[in-house]
Amino acid sequence: MAIGRRIWAIAEGYIPSESSFEARELISHETACILNAGDREAHVAITIFFADRDPVGPYRVTVAPQRTLHLRFNDLTQPEIIPRDTDYSSVFESDQPIVVQHTRMDSRRAEVSLLSTVAFAEG
Amino acid sequence: MAIGRRIWAIAEGYIPSESSFEARELISHETACILNAGDREAHVAITIFFADRDPVGPYRVTVAPQRTLHLRFNDLTQPEIIPRDTDYSSVFESDQPIVVQHTRMDSRRAEVSLLSTVAFAEG
Amino acid sequence: MAIGRRIWAIAEGYIPSESSFEARELISHETACILNAGDREAHVAITIFFADRDPVGPYRVTVAPQRTLHLRFNDLTQPEIIPRDTDYSSVFESDQPIVVQHTRMDSRRAEVSLLSTVAFAEG
Amino acid sequence: MAIGRRIWAIAEGYIPSESSFEARELISHETACILNAGDREAHVAITIFFADRDPVGPYRVTVAPQRTLHLRFNDLTQPEIIPRDTDYSSVFESDQPIVVQHTRMDSRRAEVSLLSTVAFAEG
Repeated sequence: MAIGRRIWAIAEGYIPSESSFEARELISHETACILNAGDREAHVAITIFFADRDPVGPYRVTVAPQRTLHLRFNDLTQPEIIPRDTDYSSVFESDQPIVVQHTRMDSRRAEVSLLSTVAFAEG
Repeated sequence: MAIGRRIWAIAEGYIPSESSFEARELISHETACILNAGDREAHVAITIFFADRDPVGPYRVTVAPQRTLHLRFNDLTQPEIIPRDTDYSSVFESDQPIVVQHTRMDSRRAEVSLLSTVAFAEG
Repeated sequence: MAIGRRIWAIAEGYIPSESSFEARELISHETACILNAGDREAHVAITIFFADRDPVGPYRVTVAPQRTLHLRFNDLTQPEIIPRDTDYSSVFESDQPIVVQHTRMDSRRAEVSLLSTVAFAEG
Repeated sequence: MAIGRRIWAIAEGYIPSESSFEARELISHETACILNAGDREAHVAITIFFADRDPVGPYRVTVAPQRTLHLRFNDLTQPEIIPRDTDYSSVFESDQPIVVQHTRMDSRRAEVSLLSTVAFAEG
């Protein structure tokens, strides 16, 4: 069953450059969790907005039918990496309905800290 | 008074396998808080989506009229347990209006960390 | 300018009984932040839902025009206090449009932890 | 592509006066992340609501086309600074569609704590 919307936005965005740990799951990171509950492959184009320069993108990801993709912004490399310690926002445009949730894990200090929110769904 | 929607989705999902404490309330866990404010029993079917395999479910729970159920994903066992340290998403289909909120408590480190968001309501 | 809705729900609810500090601002607590941006007094009736017994309420609060009320669930006493270490949900019915956001501060451990989400707006 | 709404509200608001660090990025703060994904400059008027006195504003900010502004409430000075350790709410009125997300970093204790939520979109 398809669920969700085709356009989503996350106004918050900030990847700390520091981490107190080396394990992948404890490195400071931001994630866009993308659920494609439908029966068709979702092609998602992501645009990254900055405070003081033109947007970068599209970053393209595919989410298979009936799958979830917990996409780390840290891992994006094409067309360029997301700079650390830098304010950004993101917009997601999908050809199928999806659901998007935003999470940050901050491990700059010895204890991890978390934030999360459902993204803004347009339309 | 019935309040809410019948279809909800939580795109985030991750239960850390580690905990710094043994008390039930301080073990790393994820919860779907389900409010049934109406006068009729709500029958809820939950489907769990993964990154790299077919969805699992339905997990079936019943929420009595005018009651709340803070359902721990950690406690789900039928048809199978939710694997730890694994990305997932969830979809809730109810025959009555409900309200769903998602919370994680992460106690891998000695200090607990929390995240929460209202889930995405379809329709 | 009036902004918001008249019916809101928060499915999450849990006040830890323990705190690492005695200062009011660092005691473990949950808050419903209620904004009344309009020009008329908002009369709000709050009902608390539990896992295994009938709802309690209404708790009645008034939010003056163009004021915010950060209402601590910890402080509610009439018709009865909210029990600690207990799962609950809440529903807000107002005669004027309001905006509701839910926040928890958990200071059971020596470092505070926070969660927050906009509540669910009916209608 | 324009995305979002013109009126937003954040019912939560509280800037701790204490911080455990002196670096700007680790000082206790609250942020309104404002994304203007459209092609026209967005002029945003912000009003701050308090518990026990008249609202203050408008605070005026401009978000250039296709830019994000992570606005710290700590930095607002005209018409007056936001008092610390004080409950407040905020309303955003823009002449262009924007997306608003609210984040707090609390570093009163030696470990930072985070909360975030998409704001409430009117209309």
